[in-house]
Amino acid sequence: MRKKDWTDSAVSQLYVGGKMFKTKKLDLESGGTLLAVMNIADCESMNLNPSDRIRLSWDEDEIVVILDSSKKLVNIGEIGVSEDVWGNFELPDRVHVFPARKPKSLAYIRKRLFGEPLKKNEIETIVTDLIENRLSSVEATYFVASAYVQRFSPEEEETLTKAIINQGKILKFDRKPVLNKHCIGGVPGNRTTPIVIPIVAAAGYLIPKTSSRAITSPAGTADVIEIIMNVEMSAEEMKAIAEKTGAAMVWGGSVDLAPADDKLLKIRYPLKLDPLPLLVASVLAKKVAEGSDTVLIDVPIGRKVKTLDEATKLGERFIELGKRLGLKIRSVITDGSQPIGRGIGPSLEIRDVLEVLQGKGPEDLKEKSVILAGHLLEMAGEKRPFKLAQELLESGKAWKKMKEIIEAQGGDPNLSMDDIPIGHFNWDYVASADIEHLVYNSNTVAQIAREAGAPGVKGAGVYLHVPTGGSVGKGEKIITIYAEDETRLNCAISFLKENAPFMCKKTVIDQLV
Amino acid sequence: MRKKDWTDSAVSQLYVGGKMFKTKKLDLESGGTLLAVMNIADCESMNLNPSDRIRLSWDEDEIVVILDSSKKLVNIGEIGVSEDVWGNFELPDRVHVFPARKPKSLAYIRKRLFGEPLKKNEIETIVTDLIENRLSSVEATYFVASAYVQRFSPEEEETLTKAIINQGKILKFDRKPVLNKHCIGGVPGNRTTPIVIPIVAAAGYLIPKTSSRAITSPAGTADVIEIIMNVEMSAEEMKAIAEKTGAAMVWGGSVDLAPADDKLLKIRYPLKLDPLPLLVASVLAKKVAEGSDTVLIDVPIGRKVKTLDEATKLGERFIELGKRLGLKIRSVITDGSQPIGRGIGPSLEIRDVLEVLQGKGPEDLKEKSVILAGHLLEMAGEKRPFKLAQELLESGKAWKKMKEIIEAQGGDPNLSMDDIPIGHFNWDYVASADIEHLVYNSNTVAQIAREAGAPGVKGAGVYLHVPTGGSVGKGEKIITIYAEDETRLNCAISFLKENAPFMCKKTVIDQLV
Repeated sequence: MRKKDWTDSAVSQLYVGGKMFKTKKLDLESGGTLLAVMNIADCESMNLNPSDRIRLSWDEDEIVVILDSSKKLVNIGEIGVSEDVWGNFELPDRVHVFPARKPKSLAYIRKRLFGEPLKKNEIETIVTDLIENRLSSVEATYFVASAYVQRFSPEEEETLTKAIINQGKILKFDRKPVLNKHCIGGVPGNRTTPIVIPIVAAAGYLIPKTSSRAITSPAGTADVIEIIMNVEMSAEEMKAIAEKTGAAMVWGGSVDLAPADDKLLKIRYPLKLDPLPLLVASVLAKKVAEGSDTVLIDVPIGRKVKTLDEATKLGERFIELGKRLGLKIRSVITDGSQPIGRGIGPSLEIRDVLEVLQGKGPEDLKEKSVILAGHLLEMAGEKRPFKLAQELLESGKAWKKMKEIIEAQGGDPNLSMDDIPIGHFNWDYVASADIEHLVYNSNTVAQIAREAGAPGVKGAGVYLHVPTGGSVGKGEKIITIYAEDETRLNCAISFLKENAPFMCKKTVIDQLV
Repeated sequence: MRKKDWTDSAVSQLYVGGKMFKTKKLDLESGGTLLAVMNIADCESMNLNPSDRIRLSWDEDEIVVILDSSKKLVNIGEIGVSEDVWGNFELPDRVHVFPARKPKSLAYIRKRLFGEPLKKNEIETIVTDLIENRLSSVEATYFVASAYVQRFSPEEEETLTKAIINQGKILKFDRKPVLNKHCIGGVPGNRTTPIVIPIVAAAGYLIPKTSSRAITSPAGTADVIEIIMNVEMSAEEMKAIAEKTGAAMVWGGSVDLAPADDKLLKIRYPLKLDPLPLLVASVLAKKVAEGSDTVLIDVPIGRKVKTLDEATKLGERFIELGKRLGLKIRSVITDGSQPIGRGIGPSLEIRDVLEVLQGKGPEDLKEKSVILAGHLLEMAGEKRPFKLAQELLESGKAWKKMKEIIEAQGGDPNLSMDDIPIGHFNWDYVASADIEHLVYNSNTVAQIAREAGAPGVKGAGVYLHVPTGGSVGKGEKIITIYAEDETRLNCAISFLKENAPFMCKKTVIDQLV
């Protein structure tokens, strides 16, 4: 037994199996994940496979990266590294490469994919590895997918949400309560946030809120608000504005709160996996990270949840998790079967919002905003909350508060409607017969606005001349499409003609034949 | 109503929303998938998100690629393309970029992730999109993961397997039956294939077979066989050799049969997702593509399936799917709790194999090979199959057939043991006391061989001096580790000392304290 050899080797074991490689910078970016590429022949001789981990070591430094193999990108003896590596580490010309162990979270993800619940420390390890970019996109996808095998238990969901929150900044305010609202979405034109927030702030409450940009819809709240004020700022700037005005309306992507959630969102996007197992954790992680303690959830029945039963269950899940996170929380179920407001598309929607704040505008948007604001005021302890919300809006106090917020966020509080241009290529869809009880097809209306260029093209979208359930006479306008160039306009028109944008008494009316 | 505009636009719609971009070749390879990278500002202005599809159009040509976004790799106005794009298409300096629809298979994958079974055409579409590189790795991962939400029904499994088979070449032989065998693996040293095949071929039957290389084990059958003959060849070469000698032993990766299965295997690797929902489809797709009609499945109870119940269920799934594919199929359940043979590692294992073929060698390896060959001969219609298998082995007829195969596959049929060098750095583990009923820990033994360098280092591995259940006296050798360099040897020794490689009467013996 050559015991001495072994003793010596225990020290040098870190370098066992290592080989020297010449480094090469690759034009390869992977959202933070550290990747390296070795020639397939080197992989074979080192017993390495794609997705294995390797340790790159030089001088006093070392990093662990995820391996891929290639026949073409790198020669034998070369190691290619992604931008996430060479942009963040000063790699020398040559590095030692060693096999490394895979992160423990892979065993946990595997376990959960087989339907076994995870322990607290296992979920925390996964979220830590995710945020520290130790998982490949395939591996992270298995974690998301595991939520479909077996829905997260309330305990798992609580742990996951807290882990997501703790892996990022958390805003703290001195005043209480800190109010917030969230709508699960799916309703075109449903821009209540920029009305609810100034109402609630005008009542003297604190309501800082982040919003998202559109992913598959014609406009997200952040896309709409940024027409009249800056929505991209740091969490610290957001906090300062909220402390000054009582409110803030910010794009969630800029404040970097709950970044682990952003990573999971990116993986859910390809299959549009919403509203789903991870939705509740995702939404409430953001709210807690924003410093909120009192949260109203708007669950519209329509596109994202289809029945009252589904909406009730989803609302209950928000309440269960919210309570576990120590929030005062309420879910309200609303009618999301029809567009709300008249404009669909960023500029058209902010015009509706400003009109409502100035005492005019679409009745349905005004009514829904007052109800939501009323719920929030009630949760804050107000005795006549709905009446108060209505008074604050109708008296112009909410509009005054909105101007304060606009100014604090670098916008012009004295803007007029003319400052919000609408695409000057437009086309009217007029009724070829008298129609009663007109009912829109939300999916089609939303897609027409997207075909016209919304949300990327701010002035593009759709204006609905007839309120839901309304009537229109032959020759009168039903819908106007706005675009900023003729090809996009034509594209939207053609989509409208191929897809019924509304129905009447449940019969599809083909106005064009 | 400006009907004319619309009519004109219907024709030009293909070009609506398009922008001209300057092309840039990226050092980015993605296993066939066509990828492009645009600056994040361009993505926003075109309403595009990562994982969306875009169409690149130039002259008379166009391709659809998967989009990613970057702030750094490409400037505004540039589009970066992966090697899979620039290596396969002659892209000009500038291309038109248009939004494109996502493939239909994403909706089907989404549906399945929610637990809904898929129709025939839906599964076929997914496999087609997979093989034509239209899915990102994240999207394909959701498909694999969907098998954990709801196991594929027998009908789905049949459709999936047939789709995998039909998306590649299928070998056809004039003679019948075409025999084959497969072991689900997990047993160190279990190298029955190069013994079973010459026995069966010596009986006059046709048995062409592909094998895999090791992924996580210390040796795959292809790694072992290639020490004495060439195992990398085209499907046509494999067929020619089988028609000449009655057999062929080929690395599955070289013949490109059932390539869709290889793509799924790559996605299953990071989490080591075997033996699992896709295993049965994966194995039988390969067998059918190899032209087999009569297949024996070896299901060892040990590492991959742990209980007789699990093994029985897995065996039954092979039989059910095999019958649906028109195969004559049999599953045998074997004892996989212990290593089989004495050598573990490519060179050590081929030495065991050659010894058995020459009438010597480890008894357990010989016995198992004869039983498996006997089952195959019985399925082929032989009346005294097990006796026949034994006679063919003991008479030297199987060894004569093996020499024919070696010669046909470019090896030296007159090779001697000295032609198979074993690593000359070695270390003996000797008993510090008398031991009875020695039982190995297969996981540890396999890992020691890997630490020593197997399978990449052919001569590395472990030799077990004591057969399972055997006894050893104080001072006698139990295990010898072989390596081709001292650092690897020390690494294996240190692993052995930290992990018990065997037990005695269920008590871990720590020989070193």
